[in-house]
Amino acid sequence: MSSPKVVALGGGHGLAASLSALRLVCDDITAVVTVADDGGSSGRLRQEFGVLPPGDLRMALAALCDDTPWGHQWRDVLQHRFSGTGPLAGHALGNLLIVALWDLDPDAVSGLDLVGQLLNARGRVLPMASVPLDIVASVALDDAHPERLSKVVGQHEVATTGGVIRTIGLEPAEPPCGERTLAAIHAADVVVLGPGSWFTSVLPHLLVPDLRAALKETRATRVLTLNLELHTEETRGLTAVGHIQSLTRHAPDITLDVVLADPSAVDDVEALSAAASAVGARLVVAPVAGRHPGQHDTLRLAAAYRDIILD
Amino acid sequence: MSSPKVVALGGGHGLAASLSALRLVCDDITAVVTVADDGGSSGRLRQEFGVLPPGDLRMALAALCDDTPWGHQWRDVLQHRFSGTGPLAGHALGNLLIVALWDLDPDAVSGLDLVGQLLNARGRVLPMASVPLDIVASVALDDAHPERLSKVVGQHEVATTGGVIRTIGLEPAEPPCGERTLAAIHAADVVVLGPGSWFTSVLPHLLVPDLRAALKETRATRVLTLNLELHTEETRGLTAVGHIQSLTRHAPDITLDVVLADPSAVDDVEALSAAASAVGARLVVAPVAGRHPGQHDTLRLAAAYRDIILD
Repeated sequence: MSSPKVVALGGGHGLAASLSALRLVCDDITAVVTVADDGGSSGRLRQEFGVLPPGDLRMALAALCDDTPWGHQWRDVLQHRFSGTGPLAGHALGNLLIVALWDLDPDAVSGLDLVGQLLNARGRVLPMASVPLDIVASVALDDAHPERLSKVVGQHEVATTGGVIRTIGLEPAEPPCGERTLAAIHAADVVVLGPGSWFTSVLPHLLVPDLRAALKETRATRVLTLNLELHTEETRGLTAVGHIQSLTRHAPDITLDVVLADPSAVDDVEALSAAASAVGARLVVAPVAGRHPGQHDTLRLAAAYRDIILD
Repeated sequence: MSSPKVVALGGGHGLAASLSALRLVCDDITAVVTVADDGGSSGRLRQEFGVLPPGDLRMALAALCDDTPWGHQWRDVLQHRFSGTGPLAGHALGNLLIVALWDLDPDAVSGLDLVGQLLNARGRVLPMASVPLDIVASVALDDAHPERLSKVVGQHEVATTGGVIRTIGLEPAEPPCGERTLAAIHAADVVVLGPGSWFTSVLPHLLVPDLRAALKETRATRVLTLNLELHTEETRGLTAVGHIQSLTRHAPDITLDVVLADPSAVDDVEALSAAASAVGARLVVAPVAGRHPGQHDTLRLAAAYRDIILD
């Protein structure tokens, strides 16, 4: 059998965890990355150059860097942020590299392909939409009045709102998705969604119409990897079952094949199994937690992905 | 015979021309690069981070990039400057890469070695001094009163003064030179000075006391490559002979072995030959000019260097 084609969707540290694990068990990896960040270095570059926010793309590229001392050095350099308080402070070098390539080649995808070639990256990194996005959330900010919903705009604001997020949307509401991203989904044998910040890195992919359609149509095995820490600032009060339900609420037509969860994040295995079944998936409970709270163990996650891919 | 060790001293486009030619004819190349730039991207980074100005170091690294499509792409990316008018506008990506490495490894030389490894550069790039420098010049600004000399400070100011530069100096006046730079000079078989901006890229090396001492003591063949355009804004009224005399005026104890000049830049071959003899050198007149005014032809310059190295 040739190496299976795996597409991992997400953003930030969660996607990087998936990619670091996947690269150990397959050769053909594509990352489809959120482009809604509006904070920090990404937010400033987006503002200065009108480009896609590069931060999540950079983290994916760093996770796919060559597994050699040379590649590890590049990974560290990409992730390095300038110190101080001057105009460059806080910028990640990798963000600047990506934006420089986009200055040389305004086609975002071929620019990213070029960065991948320069870094000898093991896989491809694609944006989930062709235009910069903003996340908007409907949030209950007042615990005493959970029915009163406020609109919160911007990934950074949404991720740190402190309220209970009910639903999210995108601005623009129906962003275009690049053909090469859609082609990767259609050609995939396995598609992995998550782990990652639920409302700002995982669910947004399902709100891009063409991307959701491709995820519905693809013959790939659809895997949802649940987070290790369910109750974050973004997901107050959301159980494991609640995570799956919120996915269904945002994308009712999407079915899954596998829901992967660490035992520590499953409080009620029967309820979670039933929730998985309701979206067409079998529940796989496997030890994938690492030593640090909230962080997946790369090798254990790789083993779990391998078992799912081979099944 | 093992490959000769060649050290090229200079800065900017002139040094890049020498390095591009040398890499065609020898494998062991070290660039010793001026660190006095105070304008543009380098000036801003120097101010923001208190580091050596990276611009001339970047150009040397770009000239030593791998001679493959991959290396050429890296070269173009290093040289690329951000567009627009924002905080990043005008910064060369390669400058930011060097400064990021210095943030990770404050030892300037090992940081530069790391950049070279990341780019698979064919040779080593070292700074001519361990601290950022400023060039100060004694300049006759008023043609009607050439005896009235003004002090002009800063490489950018000196390079564009418009007056007649008499002498230059450095601030600090006696900067330290790193051991690895001195060791490269001592171990060299051939040392090449120039081409390049005469007062701001070529002569400054001779004003660093330890570097001048090493250049005096080394058993290497000392080659001076004269510029193609003698009369620049920096060198008003300076003939080819005047160039050699100004070198002697700034570094009376330095002798040379070869002075290399293109026929187009030699108006009086006997006078130039005599001036070369006066500093211990033979004059080599060889066609090394390229198609664009002032630019050396890489292949012809390589051929001239090869003949000198093999002699």
